[in-house]
Amino acid sequence: MRTVKLELGPDSYDILIGRDLLAQAERISALLPQPRAAIVTNTTVATLYLQPLVDALTARGVDVLPIVLPDGEQYKTWETLNLIFDALLGARAERKTTLIALGGGVVGDMTGFAAAVYQRGVPFIQIPTTLLAQVDSSVGGKTAINHPLGKNMIGSFYQPQLVLADLATLDTLPPREFSAGMAEIIKYGLIDDLAFFEWLEANIDALMARDVAALTYAVERSCQNKARIVGEDEKEQGVRALLNLGHTFGHAIETGMGYGVWLHGEGVAAGMVLAAHASRLLGQISDADLQRITGLIRAAGLPVQAPDFGYERYAELMAQDKKVDAGKIKFILMQKLGQSYIGTLTPDIVRGALQAGCSADAVASSLA
Amino acid sequence: MRTVKLELGPDSYDILIGRDLLAQAERISALLPQPRAAIVTNTTVATLYLQPLVDALTARGVDVLPIVLPDGEQYKTWETLNLIFDALLGARAERKTTLIALGGGVVGDMTGFAAAVYQRGVPFIQIPTTLLAQVDSSVGGKTAINHPLGKNMIGSFYQPQLVLADLATLDTLPPREFSAGMAEIIKYGLIDDLAFFEWLEANIDALMARDVAALTYAVERSCQNKARIVGEDEKEQGVRALLNLGHTFGHAIETGMGYGVWLHGEGVAAGMVLAAHASRLLGQISDADLQRITGLIRAAGLPVQAPDFGYERYAELMAQDKKVDAGKIKFILMQKLGQSYIGTLTPDIVRGALQAGCSADAVASSLA
Ligand SMILES: NC(=O)c1ccc[n+]([C@@H]2O[C@H](COP(=O)([O-])OP(=O)(O)OC[C@H]3O[C@@H](n4cnc5c(N)ncnc54)[C@H](O)[C@@H]3O)[C@@H](O)[C@H]2O)c1
Ligand SMILES: NC(=O)c1ccc[n+]([C@@H]2O[C@H](COP(=O)([O-])OP(=O)(O)OC[C@H]3O[C@@H](n4cnc5c(N)ncnc54)[C@H](O)[C@@H]3O)[C@@H](O)[C@H]2O)c1
Ligand SMILES: [Zn+2]
Ligand SMILES: [Zn+2]
Repeated sequence: MRTVKLELGPDSYDILIGRDLLAQAERISALLPQPRAAIVTNTTVATLYLQPLVDALTARGVDVLPIVLPDGEQYKTWETLNLIFDALLGARAERKTTLIALGGGVVGDMTGFAAAVYQRGVPFIQIPTTLLAQVDSSVGGKTAINHPLGKNMIGSFYQPQLVLADLATLDTLPPREFSAGMAEIIKYGLIDDLAFFEWLEANIDALMARDVAALTYAVERSCQNKARIVGEDEKEQGVRALLNLGHTFGHAIETGMGYGVWLHGEGVAAGMVLAAHASRLLGQISDADLQRITGLIRAAGLPVQAPDFGYERYAELMAQDKKVDAGKIKFILMQKLGQSYIGTLTPDIVRGALQAGCSADAVASSLA
Repeated sequence: MRTVKLELGPDSYDILIGRDLLAQAERISALLPQPRAAIVTNTTVATLYLQPLVDALTARGVDVLPIVLPDGEQYKTWETLNLIFDALLGARAERKTTLIALGGGVVGDMTGFAAAVYQRGVPFIQIPTTLLAQVDSSVGGKTAINHPLGKNMIGSFYQPQLVLADLATLDTLPPREFSAGMAEIIKYGLIDDLAFFEWLEANIDALMARDVAALTYAVERSCQNKARIVGEDEKEQGVRALLNLGHTFGHAIETGMGYGVWLHGEGVAAGMVLAAHASRLLGQISDADLQRITGLIRAAGLPVQAPDFGYERYAELMAQDKKVDAGKIKFILMQKLGQSYIGTLTPDIVRGALQAGCSADAVASSLA
């Protein structure tokens, strides 16, 4: 087992990475302030991993309340969140009752937000079961639900007490979801870890074959990168915004297509390609760099072309972004390969990037 | 003008108390990180105070978005909160757009919660316009909405940048609402400020006549008490729970009657009397103390008898309280007159207190 520490003073916590950690329920029970916990999961993950976890915790004397939500990004809403509150209040969950998120980023984001606001805050543990959640969403304390007018618009910064990433759960992850997680892994290389980017280029086949050693390394290195950045800037006053590489375009794609049509990671992948096109138009990365980026993203089974909504619609969707300041959208751009920065773009560059990065058949091909 | 400072390190802020502060919009505009603000209010307060505030801010170059909610505790819900989000997103409010709450505790609690979670947190200013909000709810950063199964069950700790209490707005406050605010003022005397309790006994007639000097003193002393307690324990790990004197019973009354039937302050008043009965049964305060407490509460125009739901229903309603730990309800009780503590009660004492403090005609008489 590997341990990555997220250093946030009194809010610091461990990220445990390894196979078959789910069975080690004492790692969880040792942290509970009272022997009660609610496990929030969804219908898909429940059939795979809920019962073993319930049994392991019950055997350690924990009174467990399972809460099973519908599965899908389109359910990352207030209505679904309310199902959690109804269950918690119905079972008289208290301020010391811990919420455990068992699932991907959707379950994690919603459970984290529920924990942040139920009775003004209860303890919270993340058990991410998708690659994306293990390398990104479960780490760093961003929680949220969507609003019809924008993704992740309602939420909190709220840190878990523990992240337990059981790599064995990835055995059942569908290939498309596995690829979606690869998008966030590649992102870390592009933000400021060129060595990792090059390692990914060299090991992409092993990773896509889910080789245990390669996967363990990629998850650990990703968590180290994320923990470092979040540790420097928990509330995204500065450097943490780099983690949004590909996300301004990506969220526009997700919202524009309708939640759940493009996966989050797919939107991020095509969004990173758009950011790369913009950076190339600015003369900051070369054609060869751009090709290495699209090459790696394609090798990870991800779309490199964004849907062609047209400039106006993209502009409209992106104007709702959380990274807008005084009407100016902030983009994460590439200074050079493996080094990103926070900047702005003229409409001309955005137009040019969209021209280069979109095509009418992008949607169809990427979903094929 | 009087200034009370709430000391919370980097989150410290001022509470300004005086007449005609609303016109001094530079106190607000000086704090805005961008010249944009949304004023959240309700239909009643909007007709009285919205336009002058909009004008004053606009004159200082602030772009103002007014958001007018329906009026009433029964609207302190997610649905109403969503009206705020819809308006903010529709107008492209950003992370630096400040939310200003203009109204009583309902508007303040909802606006504060909206500010806490909109885009994971935006700046927030309180302009309380009820006595209750000026002496209690606008100070200390508790924000919340109600759930059908319990009051203030969903919320955050989220501090404002400024509290601006314009005493002139109280001129239009209906007597029943004025009395509701008196309940929280009396509460401070009973928590740990006997001198203030005695000052209130001596000045209750001047206060009820809304004498400016008496009112200014009562609001300032109340805010000092609240600021001191919150400054010691922002997240209610300990001493802050004392501020819930009367509230475990009071919330049960509010929820049991249906939100908006008994006012919050009325529930708290009858709840404090029940806490006093329990304390007397425990031999901690005398019959004479109890009579002084009910005498002051009655003189403030507040109910001293709780509705007679019966023990079982009270127990059920109180079991949902946020101050429950391992199934045990925590009550705020009186050690002696003017000194409260956090304790628990046996069912027998609760039964006895309810027997003494409830009567079948309490509802009718208190609402007469
Ligand atoms: N909080 C953050 O910092 C952050 C960062 C990145 C992404 N996110 C959010 O995460 C979400 C995307 O997360 P995601 O990609 O995990 O999607 P997801 O949670 O929808 O999971 C993807 C699918 O895989 C299924 N699944 C989960 N675990 C499985 C397993 N072990 N075996 C088989 N199937 C499994 C799920 O039921 C779902 O159908 C988005 O809402 C995004 O906004 C948040
Ligand atoms: N956050 C906290 O720490 C805290 C503390 C105490 C109470 N509360 C909450 O506060 C709420 C009660 O607040 P409240 O008593 O102010 O009720 P309220 O907000 O409902 O206001 C009472 C009534 O007075 C009207 N009103 C407001 N200002 C007026 C004015 N200047 N002139 C004429 N009418 C005016 C309102 O429209 C409303 O009809 C409850 O929801 C309670 O839970 C919160
Ligand atoms: Zn992402
Ligand atoms: Zn109160």
